Order: sequence, then C-alpha cells, then structure tokens
Amino acid sequence: MYRRELLSLGVFALVPQVSGLVAPPLELDDLVAANHILASENIVDGYGHVSYRSPRDKSRFLLSRSIAPESVTALDILEYGLDGEPINSKGATSYKERYIHSEIYRARPDVNAVVHCHAPSLIPFGVTKVPLRPMYHQSAFLAAGVPVFEIREAGGMTNMLVETAALGRALAKTLADKPAALMRGHGAVVVADTIPNVVGRSIYLEINARVQAQAIALGGPITYIDPEEARKYAASDNYSRAWELWKKKAK
Amino acid sequence: MYRRELLSLGVFALVPQVSGLVAPPLELDDLVAANHILASENIVDGYGHVSYRSPRDKSRFLLSRSIAPESVTALDILEYGLDGEPINSKGATSYKERYIHSEIYRARPDVNAVVHCHAPSLIPFGVTKVPLRPMYHQSAFLAAGVPVFEIREAGGMTNMLVETAALGRALAKTLADKPAALMRGHGAVVVADTIPNVVGRSIYLEINARVQAQAIALGGPITYIDPEEARKYAASDNYSRAWELWKKKAK
Amino acid sequence: MYRRELLSLGVFALVPQVSGLVAPPLELDDLVAANHILASENIVDGYGHVSYRSPRDKSRFLLSRSIAPESVTALDILEYGLDGEPINSKGATSYKERYIHSEIYRARPDVNAVVHCHAPSLIPFGVTKVPLRPMYHQSAFLAAGVPVFEIREAGGMTNMLVETAALGRALAKTLADKPAALMRGHGAVVVADTIPNVVGRSIYLEINARVQAQAIALGGPITYIDPEEARKYAASDNYSRAWELWKKKAK
Amino acid sequence: MYRRELLSLGVFALVPQVSGLVAPPLELDDLVAANHILASENIVDGYGHVSYRSPRDKSRFLLSRSIAPESVTALDILEYGLDGEPINSKGATSYKERYIHSEIYRARPDVNAVVHCHAPSLIPFGVTKVPLRPMYHQSAFLAAGVPVFEIREAGGMTNMLVETAALGRALAKTLADKPAALMRGHGAVVVADTIPNVVGRSIYLEINARVQAQAIALGGPITYIDPEEARKYAASDNYSRAWELWKKKAK
Repeated sequence: MYRRELLSLGVFALVPQVSGLVAPPLELDDLVAANHILASENIVDGYGHVSYRSPRDKSRFLLSRSIAPESVTALDILEYGLDGEPINSKGATSYKERYIHSEIYRARPDVNAVVHCHAPSLIPFGVTKVPLRPMYHQSAFLAAGVPVFEIREAGGMTNMLVETAALGRALAKTLADKPAALMRGHGAVVVADTIPNVVGRSIYLEINARVQAQAIALGGPITYIDPEEARKYAASDNYSRAWELWKKKAK
Repeated sequence: MYRRELLSLGVFALVPQVSGLVAPPLELDDLVAANHILASENIVDGYGHVSYRSPRDKSRFLLSRSIAPESVTALDILEYGLDGEPINSKGATSYKERYIHSEIYRARPDVNAVVHCHAPSLIPFGVTKVPLRPMYHQSAFLAAGVPVFEIREAGGMTNMLVETAALGRALAKTLADKPAALMRGHGAVVVADTIPNVVGRSIYLEINARVQAQAIALGGPITYIDPEEARKYAASDNYSRAWELWKKKAK
Repeated sequence: MYRRELLSLGVFALVPQVSGLVAPPLELDDLVAANHILASENIVDGYGHVSYRSPRDKSRFLLSRSIAPESVTALDILEYGLDGEPINSKGATSYKERYIHSEIYRARPDVNAVVHCHAPSLIPFGVTKVPLRPMYHQSAFLAAGVPVFEIREAGGMTNMLVETAALGRALAKTLADKPAALMRGHGAVVVADTIPNVVGRSIYLEINARVQAQAIALGGPITYIDPEEARKYAASDNYSRAWELWKKKAK
Repeated sequence: MYRRELLSLGVFALVPQVSGLVAPPLELDDLVAANHILASENIVDGYGHVSYRSPRDKSRFLLSRSIAPESVTALDILEYGLDGEPINSKGATSYKERYIHSEIYRARPDVNAVVHCHAPSLIPFGVTKVPLRPMYHQSAFLAAGVPVFEIREAGGMTNMLVETAALGRALAKTLADKPAALMRGHGAVVVADTIPNVVGRSIYLEINARVQAQAIALGGPITYIDPEEARKYAASDNYSRAWELWKKKAK
C-alpha cells in the first residue's frame, strides 16, 4: 500500500526523508508492517524498535526515526551506517539506542533483522537467575540459550540505555551467536535472518516467558525442548503462515 | 452466508478447490465458523486447525488448506481420506500435521470433529507432572483424564510435529477413548461428536488450565469435579447456547 | 432505547413474549443493560444470568429466557413466580437454574437483584479452603464473609446444576444474609438491593479474587479491610458513577 | 479539538461550568487526554481522577467534576483552591477525595499533576509487607521508594476514603518527597511535574507491580534498578514519545 502510494506520488524524488534511501519500497512495506505487528501483539508499546539490514549494502540498515512503532510509516524510515550514524537524517531525531542495531549488524553477518523491546513478561527473567528455556516447538530457537546482558559489567553505573557504540559492542558480545539476549532491568534484543523471522521470534519469546513462569509455578521438573528437537524443528518453519495473519490483525 | 454466496455463484461446478467436495455447504458454514471462533477465543493463533468428518462418507474428513484459522473461508476447505491424502488438493498446500486428524478419525468411530491447538495455558501441563483435572462443571469432561503424548516414545528425537501417519497413530493411541490429550512441548488435541462440542471443549479446556494453575498457586487441597458428577453433567449440555454467541463474537 | 421502541410499536399489547409482563419498560432497560455489562466486563460468557424482583409484585421476578446474556433484549425477558414457574413463557425455554433466583427472592426480602456467574477467577476460591476476603474498599462488602455452597451436602452426586427448588433452597440457606456465595466447582451467586449494585458487586467480587490470589502469591500476612471499615464504606457508595460508564462500554 | 470547539462557541463566556476557569484551553486538552488515557490503559475504571495545578495561580488546580474519567470533557473540569473548595462549582458534584489533590499541591511545590487510582495490580503491594521496587528503567523513578499510607494511623476506623483535608494532609505526609505512594486497601497516588509525566509514571507503576509479582514468583534474588542508575535514567526521558501514542489509542 505504502509502496504504491509512494510510487504514485513520486516521493522518492520529492520527500526529503526518503530521498536518501537506497532501499526499494518492498522492504519498507515489511519493515513498516513489522513495526505495526510488534505493537499490535504487545511486544512493544511507545518504546522499542525494529531494523532491517539493507540487502544492497550490507554495511547499512533501515530504522525508523524516533517515534512509537505503532505510528511508523515508510516516510519515517531512515538509513544508517554501522557506526550508528544516519546517512541522511533530514533533521529527524534518531533513536538513542540505535547502537544496539549497528553493533549487532557489525558483529553478526548472518543477521538481517533486529528487534529491541521491553515486553513486561521478559523483565523477570532478566533480573533473576532463572534462565529462559524453550517450552514448546514455537520457541524451540531458545534451546540455543538466552544470555543476559548486565550493563554494569560493560559500563558501570549507567542510565541503562545502550546509547553508545561501546555499549552496543558489549551487548553484541553477550548475544554472541544466539537468536536472543535479555538485558537486565531493561528488556531484550532478538535477531534473525528475515523480518518475519525476527517478528515471529519476538512474539514466541514473549509467550515462552509467560508459559515458563506458569510451569515453574505449577512446581516439579519441567521437560524443555531438547536441543536436537530444536535443531530439527528449526528447519521446518519460517512463520510465513502467521506473518500474513499478523499483518492483517495489525491493520 | 458463504452457502448462499456459493450457491448464487454456482461455484460448486466452477471453482476448482470446491468441486471435489462431496459435503453440502451447511457443514462448511459450521467448520468455517469453528475456525474463526477458535481464533477469536484465543485457542489458536496463526497455527492450529479444526476438522470435521464427512457425514456422507465416514472415511473422509474436511480440513482447511494450510492457512491461519482466522482467514479460512469455505473455498479453503479440502476433503481428505483416512491416510491423510487430499482427495483433490487442486494444488493447495496441506497442513503438515493432518495425520493428527486422519489417524484419530480412523481409531475413533465416535469422533466427528478434531481440534489441534497450541494455547499457551495448556503448555505447562504438558511439560510437568501435574495432570489437568476438572475444576468446574464447564470442563467436567476432563474427569475422564487428560493423557500426555510424549513424541519421543513414538519417534525418538523429532521436529516435534505429527507429520507422519505413524506419529498420528501413536497420538491416537495415547488419546485412547478420552476427549482430549496434551502433547509435550507442543499443545493439545481435542475431540468430540460435533463441531460445537469440539469448539466448546477446546475453550473450556483452556480456561480450566488457567483456573487450575491459579488454584494450585492458592495452596492446599483442591476438590475436583467427581467422575460421577461429570457423568451426570455430560448429559445436560451441548454448548448450543454459547455456540450462537461465539459465532456472533467471531464475526 | 428499547423502551421507546417498545412504546412506539405498542408491543405490550402485540408481542406475545411481552404481553404477560406487569413490569414497566424502565426496569427492562436496566435489566437488559445489566446482561450486556456482565458480558462486556467478562463476568459471564455464554452462560450465567441476572434477574430483578418485580417492584409491583414482590413475589415475582424478571429473568431472560435461556440465551446468552450478551444477546438479551427486552423482548427476551420473562416474568417468574417464586416457585420458578414462568407466568407466561409463550413457548420460550427457561434457564434450568432459575431456582437460584426464585429461592433467594423467597428467602431474602431485602434482595431485589441476583446474579449467577462462572467467572474463572472465582473458581479457585470455591474448590480450595482459602476464603475470599476483602482486599480494598471497592470489595468491602466481602467483609461479611463469602460462604461456599457444597452441592453434595444438599443433593449428593448431582450434575452440579441448581435445577430444582430444593437445591435452590439449600443454596439460599448457605448464602444466608450475605451479599455473595461461591458454589464449589461451579461459580458464584451475588445479591443486592438494586440492579447497579448487584452488577457492581459482581464486578468487584471478580477483581477481588484476582487481587487476593496475587497478594497470596507475594507471601506474608495480608491486611484485609476491617469489618468496621467495610460497614462505614458501605454507606458511601452505590456504583452510580461506574454504572453510567459500564453501560456506555457495553454498547 | 475541544479547544477549537470551545473557542468557536465562545463557551468561556456562555457555559456556566467553564466561565469560572482562569486556565486557557490548552491545559484542558491535556487534562482531558490524561483522563482518557488512564482509562484506556486500565489505570482507572469508573473511579479514580487526575488533576493539574493551574500555571497562572499556583494555589489552584483543575479537576473534573465527579464522573468517570473516560467520560470527562473540557466542560466537566472545575477549578479548586488548596482547601479543596471549588471556585465555581455551578452546582456540579465534586469528587469526595479531592483533598488528595489539594493537600499534595499544598505540601509539594514541585508537583503540578496528581493521579489517584485503584489499579488492581497495585493493591497486593499495599496490603502486604512486600515493597514495590523498580524492575526496569521505565519504572526507575520507584528507586526513591514507595511508601504505604495506612489510613488507620491518621484516622482510625474510617470508610477508607480521603474525604477530609486532615486525611489529605496525612497522605501528603506519607508521600513526602516521593513520586508515588500506595494506600492500604485502597489504591495509589502518583505525582509529577507535568501531565505526561504523571500519566507515564502511573502506567509504568502498574506494569512494575505486575512484573515484580512475576519475578517474585520465579523465586531467587532479584536485581532491582540501582538508585544511581535511576538517577541517571531520570534525566533522559519525559514520556514524550509515548504520550502521542497514548493519546491516539485513547481516542
């Protein structure tokens, strides 16, 4: 929809915020949809963000200017370099924590999409010693383990925000080769190879946290998804069936 | 509504996906409604499915092609045989786990409707040793017991999906003569004689899981519905009053 | 709205279901609103009911025919005597459990409105030994105590439903002079002098159950509302401010 | 919107309820929005209120007449003095608990906005000995501590309502220099320098209560936001990004 509107208006030549973009509008559609889905599925509220690595230049990524995800349109999306600098900000304000994205893209060539969120269900697992573990096939990717980023180890007493490249690098180091990391007293970061996958992982990460807390409250030992089961399941799904539904519901 | 549209369009002769159907449109209405209700009542999300045994040929059943239940229309519903083979797929993709349905229909002549879902509240009871038990009359059918299917016993390390006839048979064997079974690290299967009953059981199974978890958290002994109370209650309800409401709310 | 429609249509003379009514339409408005509010506030689902004692004949009460509360209109409301018999059913089906209402009206001259519901949060307190107690001023009326009705004591092994006058009498006896009683493995009954009050009590009873469960989970001693605080608070509110909001939200 | 309507109608001269107002309509817009946001975010239901100190006369504040927050319009807002007396009530009923606002404004020159609410998640922390503590950056302001107001210490056995200036003073004394206080068996009061800040604090106070309860249920020690981290975070946010979203969602 945005794509067609943009083309019909010729905005790529006319609108300042967009003219700096190398990305074709198709990715914008998906990135805008991802913003709206994360809001409608209660993964983000007024805060949190999602980015996408430019397929034409692996050293750049697309991320909205600093507004609530639910309100993002194609016109709000800016391009950034791997130092977290906007290529052409046109005066728009950037998210302070864009370094979460830039440093993960730098450290992880396999990652093309990054979500940062503060979903309430995730917070308890970031501030206790209880590790998040996979409760069912939908969150099988958690079998790889979910490390917790303690910002004090990297930056001492901070304002909790990953608002420098150094803190972003420390977070990327904690994330290592995993699909998600919790951030103590803050939230989480989720990564994947595609936009639908990073959205799907974010949604099922949140459900897993709720379900695991309920299972712990029931008492007794819990049978988690086995790493081998997780490996086999990983090959069989890409959230494509759910992606169409999420888009419809987010409209 | 679909029925009338279909008739007015003469689609049974014209539309490829439908022409293979023996079923009259009235059942399609209910099966489409069941898909929408399960979505609106949060029993299924982008995943999960519901089927209905053909009343004209007990060795066949109706099931949507592989899309999210909320999006299912009469045109998406295909007919299958008891080996899980589509009678006339017309090129549509089938749910990988259709063997859940085919093997239960084969093993259980009394069953005419099957739901498979991943409702989050059910997951904890599938991965701990706490059995689901009936908390109130609405879920009295649980007094029969809710077995847990451990796919490792049937298939060793799998991708967790019931995507072969052999795994479907193992699940049907665990289900035995019960109205529902949990699937470890996966979800649940619910069966009944009619579409409203399988939808009603799915809804109250999910509520029961939440309520039982809350009662356990309160501490102390719990008085469950007695098997004899359950037997007596079973004769007195068929979810007909709720079915009309669920349909209205799902629209 | 219904009142005006009914008057303009002269339905009190023409429509069979209504012609037996002595009640003027104003009470119907409030009783219809109560049905819709209880549904929109998640106190009832497809099941549950609310009644009102006729102000012109204290030995009669008004109650919908057997449909989901959310769907009730003025045309669905029937008049009953204190033996639970419809004065003029016009062929409509009555709720099986109307004896909950009839026997409470018989035993409690101070009661003019009765709600029966199965709100999930209430179920755990009916099947454990943990008594519901008032957590805050909004539910201060619980300081009177919330007895639990064990249907086995009155009827042995039943289908759990209060579908005879004898069971209704036993429930009324358990309720005694209290504003609410839980029913083991079933739900609750709530009574008051007015329709807004019985609706308000039902809503805050349900919130109190959730809040008390959360406080118990926190651990340590809980300071409940003192009976004297409850007595003083009782004089100061009648839910009138909330009633207008609930009606607006239920539309 | 209200502002424009009011101006075009010249209501400041014509409408009795408004003519007593010194405040320009811009603040009314934000105060009306705050009422609607608190309702749509489930911080208040039919009860609870939010006020704003007049920027032109520090000894006066603006507060709706006694109606549900969700229904408040600019025409419902009255002006009060610091003794809790309406400057010009025009016959409208005032909230009984307006003394919560008046006495806090008197005691706290730094406070320009006050919320009083009964959000269910907060109740457990007011009736147990478990102190509310900050789980994440969004609720870092809780690091200052959340005192609990025990009305019995100030007024003995009351109806629980802060409906006198003396009780308001006692509450303000308990609040001291903190951003929020719980009220045993009642709810909470939240204060800030601006309307968006008092709304934001109310929303994240409620989320913090839910998250902290979940973390406690997980077991083991919890790492709360450090007071120094909270101090540093306090300088970096003012809820401005969320405020626009909340307004949009409340419409």
